Amino acid sequence: MSSHTGQSAVTVLGLGPMGRSLAGAFLDAGVRTTVWNRTPGRDRELVARGAAGARTAGEAVAASPLTVVCVVDYDAVDAVVRRPEVTDALKGRTVVNLSADTPDRARATAGWAAGHGVRYLDGAIMTPTPTIGTPAAVFLHSGPEELYRAHRPVLAALGGTHTHLGEEIGRAAAYDIALLDIFWTAVAGYTHALALARAEGVGAGELAPFAAGISAILPPVFEQAAREVDSGHFSEPGNPLTSAASSMAHIVHTSEGHGIDAGVMRAAEGWARRAIGQGHGADGLARIAELLSRR
Amino acid sequence: MSSHTGQSAVTVLGLGPMGRSLAGAFLDAGVRTTVWNRTPGRDRELVARGAAGARTAGEAVAASPLTVVCVVDYDAVDAVVRRPEVTDALKGRTVVNLSADTPDRARATAGWAAGHGVRYLDGAIMTPTPTIGTPAAVFLHSGPEELYRAHRPVLAALGGTHTHLGEEIGRAAAYDIALLDIFWTAVAGYTHALALARAEGVGAGELAPFAAGISAILPPVFEQAAREVDSGHFSEPGNPLTSAASSMAHIVHTSEGHGIDAGVMRAAEGWARRAIGQGHGADGLARIAELLSRR
Repeated sequence: MSSHTGQSAVTVLGLGPMGRSLAGAFLDAGVRTTVWNRTPGRDRELVARGAAGARTAGEAVAASPLTVVCVVDYDAVDAVVRRPEVTDALKGRTVVNLSADTPDRARATAGWAAGHGVRYLDGAIMTPTPTIGTPAAVFLHSGPEELYRAHRPVLAALGGTHTHLGEEIGRAAAYDIALLDIFWTAVAGYTHALALARAEGVGAGELAPFAAGISAILPPVFEQAAREVDSGHFSEPGNPLTSAASSMAHIVHTSEGHGIDAGVMRAAEGWARRAIGQGHGADGLARIAELLSRR
Repeated sequence: MSSHTGQSAVTVLGLGPMGRSLAGAFLDAGVRTTVWNRTPGRDRELVARGAAGARTAGEAVAASPLTVVCVVDYDAVDAVVRRPEVTDALKGRTVVNLSADTPDRARATAGWAAGHGVRYLDGAIMTPTPTIGTPAAVFLHSGPEELYRAHRPVLAALGGTHTHLGEEIGRAAAYDIALLDIFWTAVAGYTHALALARAEGVGAGELAPFAAGISAILPPVFEQAAREVDSGHFSEPGNPLTSAASSMAHIVHTSEGHGIDAGVMRAAEGWARRAIGQGHGADGLARIAELLSRR
């Protein structure tokens, strides 16, 4: 069993793969950790490692000044914390909500918390479970700065980089959703590429090392596009929209020739064609961000 | 002017940004380089650096045993090399076609070459122009291995990594199109994320460093998915399709709430929902590759 440091204590609500990783990192850092999950039995290994297993969510949140919630979405958060016995027990305590949902839901939850004397920080975890407790973990936070500072030492037990993005409570969820947009779109594109490669006789294991090479060339492309969007100057001679659209059309054509749905690339090509149609064919892809922003 | 090594000589057809980079790298390595472009005037800087500027494409290809073609697509390739005076001059010589198009077009061009006594290798350039001549460049090649070996020393002047993927002439284009599928889908997702972030008050320059972090977590995700696709075992507990679809729905909802088109993510979510509907909700995203492959 870990040696517990003086007063630091935390409750973790939600023991899915991520919740269990969070609780495990707190235990490894010697933080007194109480755990609870809606479906019983998920706390066994954590209790064996020194966690206190609470019988109810109310009992769990009463055990610590800080409760970290990590469940599937904010409907699941509400189903736990908005029950009267839990809300009562949370009064005067702090909730750090690391569940993923939309910025609007984060703002709604903050409104509920303010109305019930619950101190509230919203957050997002940007890296997968194996990174938790290691330097590779990335956490984003938003909400009152003094509250974040007060709990920063306990949160540091989760390892990695913690960034306070600002007092506006929806900010962590806004970053989260924009970054997940990049992640899931890229992964969807990759699964499509695997299907396309297979149709051409190229195995997934053959393509994967080169796919890793593609991910390596993205950061400078992202940087350049960000500069263009923030400055409003879109002239990027290296990768004009006309070449992009031509390349996208080849991908659609080859996919559909193999009977593979190309809906994602068709939608992307549509954005490029609209920007070209508006006279921006010589600009880079960043022009699409502007096109999409315009009402 | 560079000092020219003995017999090594190359002709570069097409002097767009990539063609000029290729010719420049050959010149820097001391290869005797002849250049030609459909629109005149593009060869000025290269000629000043020591290249021979040809007046016609026929004259250009006659000057070297090896011609590298890099134009916008294979329609543009055909418009140059299938003119009788050029085809005649190419007889017994080698063409390395580094233009981008579909695997079918590569096979068609190889068929034309075989019918006219032209020796033919197909290839693809996977990295942007600034990498040419540096260790960061990535070139893929396919076609007869002895032909590749014969010209490998001259091609080495382009720097970077050269991989011969096999004798099947369409293979370089197949890798190219699958890798471009990943690249353009990821970039389209990024431009959408920038629009979404902006609507939430987050600047492109604020999001970009975290976006680079997302690209860094892609390679292990790609590796894992490749193993699943090649093995046919799709149970991936970390990132089930149900969570992916839930996350995708948040992104669609938030985008459309801001009036931002979410067509790319809607199409991706559709793939996830179809796989879930077929009973694969607990599997990872790699299951989508299988779904797309099925006729």
